[in-house]
Amino acid sequence: MPLLVMKFGGTSVADLDRIRNAAAKVKAEVDRGYDVIVIVSAMSGKTNELVGWVNETSPLYDAREYDAVVSSGENVTAGLMALTLQEMDVPARSWQGWQVPIQTTSAHSAARFVDIPRANLDMKFAEGFKVAVIAGFQGVSPEGRITTLGRGGSDTTAVAFAAAFGAERCDIYTDVDGIYTTDPRITSKARKLDKISFEEMLELASLGAKVLQTRSVELAMRYKVRLRVLSSFDETDEQSGTLVCDEDEIMESKVVSGVAYSREEAKLTLVTVEDRPGIAAAIFGPLADSGVNVDMIVQNISEKAQGSDKPVTDMTFSCPVDQVARARKALEAARDAGHINYDTLEVDEDAAKVSVVGIGMRSHAGVAARMFRALAADGVNIKVIATSEIKISVLIDRKYMELAVQALHDAFELDKAG
Amino acid sequence: MPLLVMKFGGTSVADLDRIRNAAAKVKAEVDRGYDVIVIVSAMSGKTNELVGWVNETSPLYDAREYDAVVSSGENVTAGLMALTLQEMDVPARSWQGWQVPIQTTSAHSAARFVDIPRANLDMKFAEGFKVAVIAGFQGVSPEGRITTLGRGGSDTTAVAFAAAFGAERCDIYTDVDGIYTTDPRITSKARKLDKISFEEMLELASLGAKVLQTRSVELAMRYKVRLRVLSSFDETDEQSGTLVCDEDEIMESKVVSGVAYSREEAKLTLVTVEDRPGIAAAIFGPLADSGVNVDMIVQNISEKAQGSDKPVTDMTFSCPVDQVARARKALEAARDAGHINYDTLEVDEDAAKVSVVGIGMRSHAGVAARMFRALAADGVNIKVIATSEIKISVLIDRKYMELAVQALHDAFELDKAG
Repeated sequence: MPLLVMKFGGTSVADLDRIRNAAAKVKAEVDRGYDVIVIVSAMSGKTNELVGWVNETSPLYDAREYDAVVSSGENVTAGLMALTLQEMDVPARSWQGWQVPIQTTSAHSAARFVDIPRANLDMKFAEGFKVAVIAGFQGVSPEGRITTLGRGGSDTTAVAFAAAFGAERCDIYTDVDGIYTTDPRITSKARKLDKISFEEMLELASLGAKVLQTRSVELAMRYKVRLRVLSSFDETDEQSGTLVCDEDEIMESKVVSGVAYSREEAKLTLVTVEDRPGIAAAIFGPLADSGVNVDMIVQNISEKAQGSDKPVTDMTFSCPVDQVARARKALEAARDAGHINYDTLEVDEDAAKVSVVGIGMRSHAGVAARMFRALAADGVNIKVIATSEIKISVLIDRKYMELAVQALHDAFELDKAG
Repeated sequence: MPLLVMKFGGTSVADLDRIRNAAAKVKAEVDRGYDVIVIVSAMSGKTNELVGWVNETSPLYDAREYDAVVSSGENVTAGLMALTLQEMDVPARSWQGWQVPIQTTSAHSAARFVDIPRANLDMKFAEGFKVAVIAGFQGVSPEGRITTLGRGGSDTTAVAFAAAFGAERCDIYTDVDGIYTTDPRITSKARKLDKISFEEMLELASLGAKVLQTRSVELAMRYKVRLRVLSSFDETDEQSGTLVCDEDEIMESKVVSGVAYSREEAKLTLVTVEDRPGIAAAIFGPLADSGVNVDMIVQNISEKAQGSDKPVTDMTFSCPVDQVARARKALEAARDAGHINYDTLEVDEDAAKVSVVGIGMRSHAGVAARMFRALAADGVNIKVIATSEIKISVLIDRKYMELAVQALHDAFELDKAG
């Protein structure tokens, strides 16, 4: 029997009416001949309520107890979904993590899958059950304690089940109807993509298109699980939404698939740093230890310091604006400890990052030039450039961000299909 | 290490402040040198919310899913209680039913204990944990599904753990400060009892003193678990509340320990019933099958029917007022089917039941006479009388109920200790 995994997030199961709506979509797939594994999140708001109680009770909580409390929200939805399906004459039952059992590491609140044995669910499907409803976001540790995967872990649960059971596809139902070429709030020309590759999705997700949890896309890429993102609030059929898949499935791809952005970026420059082997590690080690997410890094060409033979350079990097204070503290501590040396730290807190992403870049030259020309034509000054195999990012003045996204969307003709 | 079981009901853990208050009581016992097993209910209101969702989703629900959903309330409280104790530097952890594991039958929503293996908890106590917080009201079936014991099952969980672990005592914290000689709302002379026997408690509980679930008292009696009922809202010490214990522990007992009542009773009389062997079974079988809880039964002395040789009698019984319609229907159906025969069914819906309860009755004569005299002195007419070894009940006009309770409380001098 072909098998589908369907995942419904918190807003898709926010109340009993929405659970019924989601169950109807499951029944439609059963009627098409599928066995279905349904992954559910907690009803929206419930997890926040539970997390709030834990934090108020114990600010430095025991993560094992946190997990035991917080996982209960998904258990409630799983039972209600199974009951709703039964009311529609679909043979279904709920499964909590320990019942499957979903085996994870003992890293509470950030656990990783160890194994999802198929035996228990396979037995139920063989008995004629058509749907297994799984409480997402949770598992059980080798010590028999309940674990959670961290927020957003229900997407990861869905992909892990799809991989373990060889599902034909893993459908992620959410409150948007797919992946867009860019944020439709910034340009009305944004167009929904029919397909996108895992690699592109990873770049778009980490850059701010917050539809799928990054780890779930990584997992899908590793196990070649075809993911579909679609809306639980629309009528849907087999063509709905956006398919995230291996690039082999994407016959003709444009050079650029999408334009991503990140609004609250800061540019930091260490002026006159001694240029010696190991200096980068001496700078970025303490930053990483302090939890600063350094993104783009640029090092100027080395020159000789005035009245000295020692080569010096400037080191520029970007990080989220709300981490600037932490970065400054880490750098000053490293200088005070004598690990690094610099004249001044210049901070520009008015930056934003704009990126174009596309697997087509690999085989097409001139993408960067086309990007820079489009920005120049609108008078947008570029502060920092960073490139990867399928992405070009620039740091610009924040006030130009929307303009830049619109200009790049036009320049790469993303409003046109194919 | 001596061990205590402490159980906190829904109102005692209704919010984080109350959980802290309960945890302080647990810490006090740990400080006195006890290991403690804490049994918690769901925060008050939570179970009703979950039950409401299940009923709305599926009126004829699958009890396995009902149990999976409804048991989640206790899991939340257990985790929060463990965290609260940890904040007070008391080494504690939470246990869900399947983790102990609390083994029950598969009778979902009305499961019974099969076994509570000690190994897992004993190991944790040996490691230095002082408190095991158990989610009450739940267990796990042989099939690995979550079961619940039915409403009020947290009391039963507490007694079962006290029996399994040989606890010195099982303290039931609730919103009243003990068991009273009668309802203090009816007479201000009602006095809190220091001790009461299991047998007396059973009679009082089933008669309307709704403090302890009947099944938990039965279980406590069978395993000789000393129960203490006390308030979670008062300062408490080792003398607080009422101890429910074996009668051997009660040195001097009064003839009567308490006066119970049940307000909404009906008296039904089948007039001119054929008096033949098996007639009682023919009448009360259909009533039981229809779910009518028949309480007191009186059969008049047989006489000959007019113009006939057949002996006839009148059969009188009582049941709750809200079951009268059901009783009438069952009896008429039995008559229509030819199983029984009667002239008329007389129904008196204005009755109430008042009972005096006491193990001292066994060795003291004249209790009934004293009771009837007290009622007669106040002009209270008795409709039906029923007696057991430690209880005398009378059915009277409902409007005299408070008067009768006050008169009996005075007649047996229950306001005086010892």
